[in-house]
Amino acid sequence: MLKNLSIVDYLAKTASGDPVPGGGSSAALNAALAAALTEMVANLTIGRKGFEAVDAEMRAVAAKAAGLRSKLTDDVDRDSEAYAQVLRAFQMPKATEAEKAGRARAVQDAFKQAAFVPLGVARAAVVLMDLGRSVISKGNPNAASDGAAGVLAARMAVRAAVYNVRINLGSIKDEAFTADLRREADRLEAEAEAKAGEALSLLKI
Amino acid sequence: MLKNLSIVDYLAKTASGDPVPGGGSSAALNAALAAALTEMVANLTIGRKGFEAVDAEMRAVAAKAAGLRSKLTDDVDRDSEAYAQVLRAFQMPKATEAEKAGRARAVQDAFKQAAFVPLGVARAAVVLMDLGRSVISKGNPNAASDGAAGVLAARMAVRAAVYNVRINLGSIKDEAFTADLRREADRLEAEAEAKAGEALSLLKI
Repeated sequence: MLKNLSIVDYLAKTASGDPVPGGGSSAALNAALAAALTEMVANLTIGRKGFEAVDAEMRAVAAKAAGLRSKLTDDVDRDSEAYAQVLRAFQMPKATEAEKAGRARAVQDAFKQAAFVPLGVARAAVVLMDLGRSVISKGNPNAASDGAAGVLAARMAVRAAVYNVRINLGSIKDEAFTADLRREADRLEAEAEAKAGEALSLLKI
Repeated sequence: MLKNLSIVDYLAKTASGDPVPGGGSSAALNAALAAALTEMVANLTIGRKGFEAVDAEMRAVAAKAAGLRSKLTDDVDRDSEAYAQVLRAFQMPKATEAEKAGRARAVQDAFKQAAFVPLGVARAAVVLMDLGRSVISKGNPNAASDGAAGVLAARMAVRAAVYNVRINLGSIKDEAFTADLRREADRLEAEAEAKAGEALSLLKI
């Protein structure tokens, strides 16, 4: 699995001429990194003298970010697997009418999954921006720039994930489905820019 | 070394309450990811029918990005090591005047190195934005969104690295040094925003 590769090997696999891992897995990786950096600031705040008033909130942030980190780390693999499934569906036989219909269904299902995975990454990354804002404004100020790096990673994740949602929607024929996902992708992208701008403006350096 | 950790373990180490790895290493990781994604698009273009006119340029881009990927992957460790050196310098003895002076020098040297490493990451990430622009505009269009993800990763890297430069400059007493680095950090940040905007506007989705 990609998540068990070393940093060096993961980067080499991305750089290679294979179609996966690519931008979609990079988006999931950055969202997971956003979760990790947010947890770091919360963990550098929990139990510290002077931060008693925000202790419970920081514990809640750390727990929520840890849950998202686990899901998003799995999404690094899930995104590449969804794209690989699109490629496999295209290789299904198409000699008979029944085969053609089965292949067309499999291709459409695979594209839907390949749009759903990055949409889930973008949703989680937007949630992480709220957590990032909390740790920047209320957490240990010595680690505020780590929280800000987390917000930047989340912003990268949303934008790159939304690109992947839109690209896959271009191949999906179910118009109600594509209209719904396109609307949500547009909303998440706009929300992410606004939330990133607000959270980063709290960093005083 | 951090670069030899698995993705899962690197993220867990970031999330922990240890001061490193944090935002600075995340910046280097994203810059290395930008290099990898740029190489990917170049590698999916090299030798392909219809791309003969850009073949030499794509080979040059892939080679340059590969060199930066290697340097930037090492910077993941270099950044955390520089910060660890700051912490070690602070722990030096300060009982005598000579010890105090030696400690002060070591602290200042360590902060200078801790500012230099992210400055180098930001410089490299800005170069990668130009390579990213090349692969988005001239490379295999099927992988253009991977090139765009690379530009987003480079933008994250520059911003997060510049935060770390500025934070470390706050502890450096050599005013000529801080003025120089602050000017370059400001310039790199502005350049990165402009270059990212241009490169991403070339993506048609």
